[in-house]
Amino acid sequence: MNRKMVFYLFGRILQVEALLLLLPALTSLVYGETRVLLTFLSVAGGSALFGTLVALLCRTKNKVIYAKEGFAIVALAWVGMSVVGALPFVISGDIPNYFDAFFEIVSGFTTTGASVLPNVERLSHGALFWRSFSHWVGGMGVLVFVMAIVRNMSDRSIHIMRAEMPGPIVGKLVPRASDTAKILYLIYIVLTVIQIIMLCAGGMPFFDSLIHSFGTAGTGGFGIKSNSIAGYSNYSQIVITVFMLIFGVNFNLYYLLLIRRFRSVLKSTELWAYLGMVAVSIVVITFNILPIYDNFNDSLRHASFQVSSIITTTGYTTTDFNVWPHLSKGILLLLMCLGGCAGSTAGGLKVSRAVILFKLILREIKKMLHPRAVTSVKFEGKAVEDGTLSSVATYFAVYAFCIFAAFLVICFEPFGFESNVTAVLTTFNNVGPGFATVGPMGGFGEYTAFSKIVFSFAMLFGRLEIFPMIIALSPSTWMKK
Amino acid sequence: MNRKMVFYLFGRILQVEALLLLLPALTSLVYGETRVLLTFLSVAGGSALFGTLVALLCRTKNKVIYAKEGFAIVALAWVGMSVVGALPFVISGDIPNYFDAFFEIVSGFTTTGASVLPNVERLSHGALFWRSFSHWVGGMGVLVFVMAIVRNMSDRSIHIMRAEMPGPIVGKLVPRASDTAKILYLIYIVLTVIQIIMLCAGGMPFFDSLIHSFGTAGTGGFGIKSNSIAGYSNYSQIVITVFMLIFGVNFNLYYLLLIRRFRSVLKSTELWAYLGMVAVSIVVITFNILPIYDNFNDSLRHASFQVSSIITTTGYTTTDFNVWPHLSKGILLLLMCLGGCAGSTAGGLKVSRAVILFKLILREIKKMLHPRAVTSVKFEGKAVEDGTLSSVATYFAVYAFCIFAAFLVICFEPFGFESNVTAVLTTFNNVGPGFATVGPMGGFGEYTAFSKIVFSFAMLFGRLEIFPMIIALSPSTWMKK
Repeated sequence: MNRKMVFYLFGRILQVEALLLLLPALTSLVYGETRVLLTFLSVAGGSALFGTLVALLCRTKNKVIYAKEGFAIVALAWVGMSVVGALPFVISGDIPNYFDAFFEIVSGFTTTGASVLPNVERLSHGALFWRSFSHWVGGMGVLVFVMAIVRNMSDRSIHIMRAEMPGPIVGKLVPRASDTAKILYLIYIVLTVIQIIMLCAGGMPFFDSLIHSFGTAGTGGFGIKSNSIAGYSNYSQIVITVFMLIFGVNFNLYYLLLIRRFRSVLKSTELWAYLGMVAVSIVVITFNILPIYDNFNDSLRHASFQVSSIITTTGYTTTDFNVWPHLSKGILLLLMCLGGCAGSTAGGLKVSRAVILFKLILREIKKMLHPRAVTSVKFEGKAVEDGTLSSVATYFAVYAFCIFAAFLVICFEPFGFESNVTAVLTTFNNVGPGFATVGPMGGFGEYTAFSKIVFSFAMLFGRLEIFPMIIALSPSTWMKK
Repeated sequence: MNRKMVFYLFGRILQVEALLLLLPALTSLVYGETRVLLTFLSVAGGSALFGTLVALLCRTKNKVIYAKEGFAIVALAWVGMSVVGALPFVISGDIPNYFDAFFEIVSGFTTTGASVLPNVERLSHGALFWRSFSHWVGGMGVLVFVMAIVRNMSDRSIHIMRAEMPGPIVGKLVPRASDTAKILYLIYIVLTVIQIIMLCAGGMPFFDSLIHSFGTAGTGGFGIKSNSIAGYSNYSQIVITVFMLIFGVNFNLYYLLLIRRFRSVLKSTELWAYLGMVAVSIVVITFNILPIYDNFNDSLRHASFQVSSIITTTGYTTTDFNVWPHLSKGILLLLMCLGGCAGSTAGGLKVSRAVILFKLILREIKKMLHPRAVTSVKFEGKAVEDGTLSSVATYFAVYAFCIFAAFLVICFEPFGFESNVTAVLTTFNNVGPGFATVGPMGGFGEYTAFSKIVFSFAMLFGRLEIFPMIIALSPSTWMKK
């Protein structure tokens, strides 16, 4: 274990966070929130100072990192950024309790969007900006961002990318991992800017457009109103619906579009499975909720928005889906666990994993009928390696195991079965709202500080896809050989 | 597909069922229930006649069967036996509605023990006997029974055994499959008889002892009182607790005991994992429910009984665990899904699968840290084949998929989230009671006929471990090549 390099990079990450904290400081400056401005500046200063100190102390000539270091850096960076990122909320008085603030910023970085705040309108502009900006940063990945901006970070930075990027198969678009990171971030920025412009064009104020585009791009879900997107125009709702779906697609496909390989895009199994699930869910739910709304158009709009929001694990809402019929809620629960495409900013199990699992089941049936037949599982036109198949199936097992463990741990809470189960599912899959107590009209505020810590780690486990957190938390990782 | 052989064996199975139906007829004779006696005799006669006709029509010289035929026979036999087995309830008037009767007998054969009856005390003795006897028959397997009694059934009967016996690895104890079946049934009979004697010795009436021993041996759970085992003496409750645990152990271990290979028994990973789960659950629940009961002894007794009942998927109860604290209910939910050992009469995922999944997760972590290292998963002292590992992981995926699908299908029911989720889990895992509406004090009576059919198939899917049902239900299985 190259601990020096791990802590060196951790120091660099804190320096980056200091830079990121200047943006909410700027927002506070614009809105004349002096106290909040000073808070952000001082936390940024502290983070820069501490980060520089750590980086200087841990400077090392041995820059070689392997998979283990990659996992350790990623887990350490995410926890560390959250520990620091929670401070401005506490110091400014926006969220006085540190556990609440930690939950809120973890929910931000992991693009979950679950909140402990009963009344988000009371927050300062600086705090609102920081909350939503953390979605944008966490969506594509903090370390991918560092890789995109720092030159010659390491020859082996693919190990970091693998640890931070979601999905069963993480590859490079171009030979160098850092160039891949740059391309991904460029696509991300361009799409975000287009959304901001389109929202502004529809009459949404600039600040609101910025916040909601951050929330959409990172598939996070933090807004600035207690009723989420319900108060905005139909146009804004439709724009957000479309962009949520766009950010739930594998970014590799956008790169393929850029290099004009349209045929590869059209042949993507994951894309079609994703769009198919969305279409079927919208149709079923539209008819299922028809009796609740005035007319077909409203049903369709609400169904489309909620389905897109939940499958991409964004978590914005235009209506209280907690009062929907059981069937619609059941479908939303399924979409919560499914999540978006691999290589997108969405959370959940990922469509590609679900497709591969389904094909594994079909192969198992074939194997049972013809024990001696040689069968392979194809995905995106290629045979999937046995190691990857085993990883996908094992990931599903550890995913279910973690969800069950988290559920057991929060069982002492007085809330009902539906609240507790969906609270775990919605945090672990980085969605945001659940049902009952944690439904669109509720929140996580009533849970104890202990449970908030559990949920915070559920969000981190979910966002980093479990293994980096397990590896970073096991003492043997940090021992010297 | 050797369809003739499949239907020939189906005919033979109906003949066997006719024989089995004579036992409840005898019970009715003893208790002077003439109408019920005539019902059982006529259904037995009809079943024998129809079975003989089918067997004669489908006689074939080609007795060769492969895996496909094995699955088809097993699925067909279980559905067919249930269709016929439901008739006596309807004709005798014990359960007038056919869908209710079908649910009840499927719940019997699959050793689930879930009931649609609000008042089981009203049933005739013949019906009560048939209900519980079906547990005993279904516990070890109908076709395993046929293999044990029919001579030279087929050289390839191992395919049938594999399809019907639960667990990831089905092997033969002795070279011939039919001898293995005989040994298993002998152990089964001896253990059942010992339990009957021990219950009688404690003052339980003979009929009650018989019924409850059938229910325990098959890990079924049908009783003769609405409050299950709550009204019986502490002695009886303790005897049933111990025997539930005994019938949840892999029967291969009893064979190893018989041939004096004690060391192999003591080294069984599955056994220790099973007993460990039981012990930990009992300790936690005992302290968790202490405030509800008068004293430590009662808490311990209730905790031990319920834990043993749920992990072995029996479903007997001595108290309404639906009013227990969330934590205790959460643990019971976990045990419901876990189930007993492979090769026992218990349902659920099976402890061996859970152990192998856990080891797969550990291997995955090792593989992530050391991508080039060669790692194998060991179970019961042997390295598990890659094919088996893949089967176990895939089984977990298809298991979760089926549970989610069943949950979605019954979402139109007016019952709450907790009722619907646990109704699916308890039927699919062949347990019996769930929480809320389907808790120990409730039942499945209020569900619609459609849902009862869904639950019936959930029970069959769970008991036969999914794949035989999928294969038998796919039309391509029945096509001629």
